[in-house]
Amino acid sequence: MRTRFQQGLDDLKGKLLAMGGLAEHSVDLAVRSYQGRVPELCQKVFENEVLINMTEREIDHLALDLLAMQQPMAIDLRFILAVIKSNADLERVGDQAVNIAQRVMDLIAFPAAELAADIPEMASISAQMIRQALEAFVSGNAELAQEVLERDDVVDRMNQEIFVAMDKTIHESPEVARQALDTIMIARNFERIADHATNIAEDVIFWVRGADVRHGSGLTPVQK
Amino acid sequence: MRTRFQQGLDDLKGKLLAMGGLAEHSVDLAVRSYQGRVPELCQKVFENEVLINMTEREIDHLALDLLAMQQPMAIDLRFILAVIKSNADLERVGDQAVNIAQRVMDLIAFPAAELAADIPEMASISAQMIRQALEAFVSGNAELAQEVLERDDVVDRMNQEIFVAMDKTIHESPEVARQALDTIMIARNFERIADHATNIAEDVIFWVRGADVRHGSGLTPVQK
Repeated sequence: MRTRFQQGLDDLKGKLLAMGGLAEHSVDLAVRSYQGRVPELCQKVFENEVLINMTEREIDHLALDLLAMQQPMAIDLRFILAVIKSNADLERVGDQAVNIAQRVMDLIAFPAAELAADIPEMASISAQMIRQALEAFVSGNAELAQEVLERDDVVDRMNQEIFVAMDKTIHESPEVARQALDTIMIARNFERIADHATNIAEDVIFWVRGADVRHGSGLTPVQK
Repeated sequence: MRTRFQQGLDDLKGKLLAMGGLAEHSVDLAVRSYQGRVPELCQKVFENEVLINMTEREIDHLALDLLAMQQPMAIDLRFILAVIKSNADLERVGDQAVNIAQRVMDLIAFPAAELAADIPEMASISAQMIRQALEAFVSGNAELAQEVLERDDVVDRMNQEIFVAMDKTIHESPEVARQALDTIMIARNFERIADHATNIAEDVIFWVRGADVRHGSGLTPVQK
């Protein structure tokens, strides 16, 4: 028989996945607004943000209720903490999508320019990292979470490459300097989204293994 | 007589303030590295980051121990959660300082340029916001925390102004385009630091008032 507390933990996980779905949706809308230069899709990102913020609050209150309900075991405690932190990260993924959408609004006020920046590829990897981190959360799969960590470097490198390429464009084709500038800012936002995916993956590993893998601290077991 | 739990809460607050001190130090070093074009100060930011990451982990473990120790009252629970979240924000303030220092390293490889961007003023306000949010944490002063929230708009506006001014510079004086670009990125980092100060202030208000003020949700009391 499941206790009320265990049921609460399941509900919490379900809510976090719903939150993840909302964040992913915002990222997807933002990418498509960029690719198609569609202001209506930017608008949808702004609208989705309201829902994301509401869901963030709900999850925090649910987590607080669970912590108040009884003295949780160490692994449940780590799970609740992982949810609280991942929740905050997903909300910030939503913020980054808003930033991208705002930048796309700026970008499409200028003529379309062919730029040597593969934003869709960067977006695709970042979005996959979020999805994979959430899958690791559902299944409690630390190995899957570990893979997310390893992909963060790829996105960091792409961001750096785009910065260098756009800096070159600004010098060589000043007539599209603004578009290059916006592209740098958008790349930076995707790089932040990948960072949040990394944070979530670290939280999963901490929850499952009781180990702190942040900042390359290895698999030091937590004494509990 | 103070219980072990209450003593633990005091220790946790002390540790968070120490963490705040480290984050402030990184921001201060980053600003000075920018103002004086001093690579050694950038190096110190990178070194301080190691200490910040260590302290973040210590605080998380202490908070987890306290949650495991007994069934905390609602206000203590909110306090512990506020610490966990603010801790993560302070760690990211350190990350932003690292980003600034990396950007300064890039910047000083190019000739110094007179740019119409008051980074020191923006840095000063952001650093003050962090300090004020931490003061609000020490004293449990929700009014003080409220003031931090109100200053966030000022920093957002400065960031936007710097973006517009640097975009203009890039077009008018392409020979200093790279420096203008770096300045945009640095301004963005300070804007993020102010965001983190805002997050911490919101956590203080949530702890003290039991109210969720995020995303302009007003003072809805939490049912506890």
